[in-house]
Amino acid sequence: MTTVAAELIERTTAARAAARALAKLPTEAKNRALLAIAESLEKQQADVIAANNIDLAAGRQAGLAESLLDRLMLNRERLVGMAKDVRSVAALPDPVGEAYDARTLPNGLRIERRRVPLGVIGVIYEARPNVTTDIVSLCLKSGNAVVLRGGKEAFNSNQALVKLIRMALANFGVTPEIVQFVTSTDRAIVEQMVKLDEHIDLLIPRGGINLIKFVREEATMPAITGGIGVVHAFVDATADEKKAVEIIHNSKVQRPSVCNALDTMLIHASAAPRLLQPIARRLIGAGVELRCDQRAISLLGPIDERHVKAAAPDDFGQEFLALVMSVRVVDSMSEAIEHIERHGSGHTETIVTEDYTNAMRFLDEVDAAVVEVNASTRFNDGGQLGLGAEVAISTNKLHARGPMGLRELTSYKWIVLGDGQVRP
Amino acid sequence: MTTVAAELIERTTAARAAARALAKLPTEAKNRALLAIAESLEKQQADVIAANNIDLAAGRQAGLAESLLDRLMLNRERLVGMAKDVRSVAALPDPVGEAYDARTLPNGLRIERRRVPLGVIGVIYEARPNVTTDIVSLCLKSGNAVVLRGGKEAFNSNQALVKLIRMALANFGVTPEIVQFVTSTDRAIVEQMVKLDEHIDLLIPRGGINLIKFVREEATMPAITGGIGVVHAFVDATADEKKAVEIIHNSKVQRPSVCNALDTMLIHASAAPRLLQPIARRLIGAGVELRCDQRAISLLGPIDERHVKAAAPDDFGQEFLALVMSVRVVDSMSEAIEHIERHGSGHTETIVTEDYTNAMRFLDEVDAAVVEVNASTRFNDGGQLGLGAEVAISTNKLHARGPMGLRELTSYKWIVLGDGQVRP
Repeated sequence: MTTVAAELIERTTAARAAARALAKLPTEAKNRALLAIAESLEKQQADVIAANNIDLAAGRQAGLAESLLDRLMLNRERLVGMAKDVRSVAALPDPVGEAYDARTLPNGLRIERRRVPLGVIGVIYEARPNVTTDIVSLCLKSGNAVVLRGGKEAFNSNQALVKLIRMALANFGVTPEIVQFVTSTDRAIVEQMVKLDEHIDLLIPRGGINLIKFVREEATMPAITGGIGVVHAFVDATADEKKAVEIIHNSKVQRPSVCNALDTMLIHASAAPRLLQPIARRLIGAGVELRCDQRAISLLGPIDERHVKAAAPDDFGQEFLALVMSVRVVDSMSEAIEHIERHGSGHTETIVTEDYTNAMRFLDEVDAAVVEVNASTRFNDGGQLGLGAEVAISTNKLHARGPMGLRELTSYKWIVLGDGQVRP
Repeated sequence: MTTVAAELIERTTAARAAARALAKLPTEAKNRALLAIAESLEKQQADVIAANNIDLAAGRQAGLAESLLDRLMLNRERLVGMAKDVRSVAALPDPVGEAYDARTLPNGLRIERRRVPLGVIGVIYEARPNVTTDIVSLCLKSGNAVVLRGGKEAFNSNQALVKLIRMALANFGVTPEIVQFVTSTDRAIVEQMVKLDEHIDLLIPRGGINLIKFVREEATMPAITGGIGVVHAFVDATADEKKAVEIIHNSKVQRPSVCNALDTMLIHASAAPRLLQPIARRLIGAGVELRCDQRAISLLGPIDERHVKAAAPDDFGQEFLALVMSVRVVDSMSEAIEHIERHGSGHTETIVTEDYTNAMRFLDEVDAAVVEVNASTRFNDGGQLGLGAEVAISTNKLHARGPMGLRELTSYKWIVLGDGQVRP
């Protein structure tokens, strides 16, 4: 039995109490609070930027990679961008109270399902401080209190952002207790958080495979996990050259450090002689390293060893998060689907094809949160798919799959209106 | 690390393999298989009844209560009833493949969410053998393979039912491997099952509080728990006498051994002098024992000690599953709502009132799977609420709340249809 830190009990208890009032807050009051947060992000930047500078200096001292330092960095422009995202959440419809499946039963009972907040959301996340405002705004709009446990690299930035948010809430008459920030940086906090099922209704771990695995094995409350995307594109025999070149390039290069970036291209043997060269040229031009199976290497001809390497077995089924992509030539669509089933993480899979039957078969048989035809894998994103924003991209099958927006942060209750009905 | 029984690995692996084919099975084939099962239940009863007699004899020898023996008992009539339930599942619409939230985005991408089966459902359940056919029919219709682990009291009955089901499937060209029955009665099987997250996509424990608690703490896959119903009715100041008497009577008496039966009546102090006596008379006439707080006892007048007793503190917050009900007089609706929040299990709560504002407030503030106005608590039931049938009644907030029918046994995938779209 783990001893739970007093701070954690205090934060989660306060969140639980605040969640009750928040669940009843009218849409207008929630929107006003969101706009107040946005305005603070635009106008009261000094403390946040100063705190961020402390994190950046510590990160440099600790030798963090440039890509991580870039994710950590906040400046005036980025804070204005974060404010814009908060405003866009204010503009989304409120999911709470939405009624559906409403009907009158033969016995006269009027029934419906009505959306309600989940209660208290716990989020364990890592370096990017903009996650703080994203999550707070989605939780607030969906009527959920939130307990945040951010990574230590962004500790000062997150603390300053939460202070700003809580002040904005208090100024608009919303209890700041709906946003709780765990200040202890003790690693044991995570071990304790996952056992607090009485205080946390849903846990969202946003981090690497070890965190996800830990939560899956240890958490006693429901958790939605995701974020690990081993993403495939299958270039079919009939693929159009221009579409294939642009989709593969965009999927790999547009933002290589995120979970919906492409990791592995599977290409049909009868398309490879025609398409492998133009696709590879475009990728190599963008600085991508290709790790190819033997058949792909032969087709690519004289090898530029800086850009084309022989794939090792573990280059398949790997999430690269960098300008690296593995390539395999397959003899059939079935082989491609089997490869995806064996190596994929159920995140995002796309087929490039002009063949109608193959497109339909790919949609039916590939088991992933987002399955696409002739589109970049980068579209697996709450904003892109019309949810307005996302708190995470789920690779679970229960409750929410793919981007989790406002609706996915709600539950429902059944409402039954009678005038004295009993069961015969 | 628990050593997993070879049988369990074999069953779950076979279920996983069979689930792939089942997910693609057309509605018509699933319905034909369901009708074949129903026909077998009607026409091939001898083996099942013989097996049930063995269970009944063993149960009598072990001194099982009459109510348990009754739940365990199968006869020709009950098997015909089970067949009827299977036929009604065949008649329900197939949830698999249903598309929703379909739209065309400004960039021309056509997106939708499409329902897909969850995969493999694991069910741990206790004495009633009709649960076997209920769960198999719902899983088959929703395209899920199922691994069944029934209670030892019904072992022979369940095994005979599964044999009958598998033969019916095989005769209609559906692989019987979609229904797996764990024959080991070793208690350790449950401990092992909850760790098989690679093989079981959703675990549904149907049993007592200890099983539910064990699953919550130990399961590494998602689980939907429920079945514990500490159910309240609040008789408000303005309650109509006839409605109150009939609703309380029906909620308590119509089937006292199930989770949606009433456990506690809260009655407004200003209604108690008017309503407590007629409600109590009707209940006592049906053999109900009332465990009352002091104010209720005073109002009931001269006490019939066989039927009216002083409530002990733990009579509130208890699920009786018998003809016993606790009674408390409250001074306000707020006191009633607080009582429900403290003692309820989030299952079913009803208010009897003629006051519109109080009815709306009860619906808003009471946090339970099913919240009712002027209706018997016995309506929290998949059949009654129009789902056709149910695999369980969830008191979780994630994924499914209240009765779980076919739709609640599915997940969805996002479908994205493009013609070369990339992200700018």
